[in-house]
Amino acid sequence: MQVKAIAAVAPDKPFERTTIERREVGEHEVRIAIAFAGICHSDIHTVRAEWGEITYPMVVGHEIAGVVEEVGSKVTRFEVGDHAGVGCFVDSCRECENCKAGLDNYCLKGNIGTYNGIGRDGEPTAGGYSTHIVVDENYTLHIPENIALDEAAPLLCAGITTYSPLAHWGAKDGDKNVAVIGLGGLGHMAVKIAHAMGCEVSVLSQSLKKKEDGERLGADHYYATSDDSTFEDLRGRFDLIVNTVSADLDIAKYLSLLATDGTLVQVGGPPVPMQVPAFALIPGRKSLAGSMIGSIAETQEMLDFCGEKGIGAEVEVISADQVDEAYERVMASDVRYRFVIDTSTL
Amino acid sequence: MQVKAIAAVAPDKPFERTTIERREVGEHEVRIAIAFAGICHSDIHTVRAEWGEITYPMVVGHEIAGVVEEVGSKVTRFEVGDHAGVGCFVDSCRECENCKAGLDNYCLKGNIGTYNGIGRDGEPTAGGYSTHIVVDENYTLHIPENIALDEAAPLLCAGITTYSPLAHWGAKDGDKNVAVIGLGGLGHMAVKIAHAMGCEVSVLSQSLKKKEDGERLGADHYYATSDDSTFEDLRGRFDLIVNTVSADLDIAKYLSLLATDGTLVQVGGPPVPMQVPAFALIPGRKSLAGSMIGSIAETQEMLDFCGEKGIGAEVEVISADQVDEAYERVMASDVRYRFVIDTSTL
Repeated sequence: MQVKAIAAVAPDKPFERTTIERREVGEHEVRIAIAFAGICHSDIHTVRAEWGEITYPMVVGHEIAGVVEEVGSKVTRFEVGDHAGVGCFVDSCRECENCKAGLDNYCLKGNIGTYNGIGRDGEPTAGGYSTHIVVDENYTLHIPENIALDEAAPLLCAGITTYSPLAHWGAKDGDKNVAVIGLGGLGHMAVKIAHAMGCEVSVLSQSLKKKEDGERLGADHYYATSDDSTFEDLRGRFDLIVNTVSADLDIAKYLSLLATDGTLVQVGGPPVPMQVPAFALIPGRKSLAGSMIGSIAETQEMLDFCGEKGIGAEVEVISADQVDEAYERVMASDVRYRFVIDTSTL
Repeated sequence: MQVKAIAAVAPDKPFERTTIERREVGEHEVRIAIAFAGICHSDIHTVRAEWGEITYPMVVGHEIAGVVEEVGSKVTRFEVGDHAGVGCFVDSCRECENCKAGLDNYCLKGNIGTYNGIGRDGEPTAGGYSTHIVVDENYTLHIPENIALDEAAPLLCAGITTYSPLAHWGAKDGDKNVAVIGLGGLGHMAVKIAHAMGCEVSVLSQSLKKKEDGERLGADHYYATSDDSTFEDLRGRFDLIVNTVSADLDIAKYLSLLATDGTLVQVGGPPVPMQVPAFALIPGRKSLAGSMIGSIAETQEMLDFCGEKGIGAEVEVISADQVDEAYERVMASDVRYRFVIDTSTL
């Protein structure tokens, strides 16, 4: 069926309204009527061809929340009317060691991106800046009914990207002293989730501008990294630091804030290699690690956790006409904390 | 008592024979008649003032093996005649969180080095290139009787430095695919220990020059890193890589050899910061970590393990007069695999 969408047509041109073809619902597939689609920094990198050349027109969006409106004949996990979400990938090889181990986000053959990928049908995939999407039920998530769909959409990327490292490195037990670098789209979710896990949470932000917000979202402490005394005072303090900032930070300074056996996890990638002195890691048995979104199973676990704790993203709902402006505001860090497109305006 | 030793007298002069004072044995102390002292790269860095200014004359050596010849009145853990060893530190604060948790190698106040430190008595510490040493029994190790003392000495630094990360990152379970970068003093111990733990072991060495040795020591595979195909063939292969090389390697290339959830551990420090692209860590949830020797408890565990498995270091026993020449040969990587000073020649 033909569905409405907005597409990027060139790296430097405004989005254009268009229609795209969504395939018929297969036996194991569901069609979701998209209600909201979050705007992720990755969308911007992609449409501006900053992560490599792409084929235009390109419909992006991988923070998708909506309602199931049709299910295939063999679908068992969803019914029409269910609240459903789609994240960063819509399929994976299902055969490699990682897929078999439930780590489909690390599929060794590369999973199929929600957009800018090639689906099993051989057709390019198209993302959530559209009114409908057809996805295999095994790569579709249940969104708890008590999370509003606009606040749920960003959980599908920003939520799982921060939940996964927090869970993997033990914050789930609630006894970790956690710091979050940056209070943006990812950072604000990290704060909410780590707080809900029961951890002591600190925000490390350039300035104290968003201090009140940070505390309201669940931070116990808020520090300005522009103030050198922050690094003296907090030396050896944290068990886990989640770095949500993609800027070129002096990572050795942040590693000095880790306690013995502490881990600093990168979830975003700065444009240049990090400069890591070995002696920032050796005394204290510290680790510098990376983490990439989360598996489908863990994404469901995160959504269930957020439902249980009553957590959604802090969102600013916009219309389709405001996406270009929203992109500029994301680049200027002028959003608290995630833009979400109301797809009824498409 | 006055005991014989050899001391460094300047960064660029030969060792000189001398005598040093060893204190009377305290209530909780033992005096060890040193039989052998290993030569560690750290000794060379220290006497050449490459790790900061030092006070000459300086007696180094922290791979010490010998026989207990006197015990203090309250000593319970040692008897005269016991085979005993001393490693990199002879005391720690005993009060900090890490000391209380049994991680005295990561003492938050800094433990007391076997040499180039200041002891609890306020006197400078002096190391193992001497005939005797007096040490608190709690920082003295039992050496299993079935390990020859010359082959045991290097276990106190090279042995524990490699055993600790192997144990901490799970190689002890025997089901890890382990790579060791560099087949020198540390590397050859890493190979022996990882093999004895039951792991599949690969050596990543510049050339295939020591291939036969590596395989004899327990390596299942041996690869030349000067051959680019090594990095193509081994992509994603290893669960754990222990980097024993202090040279400035292209660490991203080695990170590419890690499997999902793999860890590369630095036990030596290159002179310049490592260049770490975030995307060498993020896809695959990889970690770059550091590890520093091991605790007293873990050093005992390592010695017991080596006793059980019949593991010692591969050594070249030298006399006190050969130490200067040995230093040159260590710098030229011309030793298989550890020089050990026979202290009866002092």
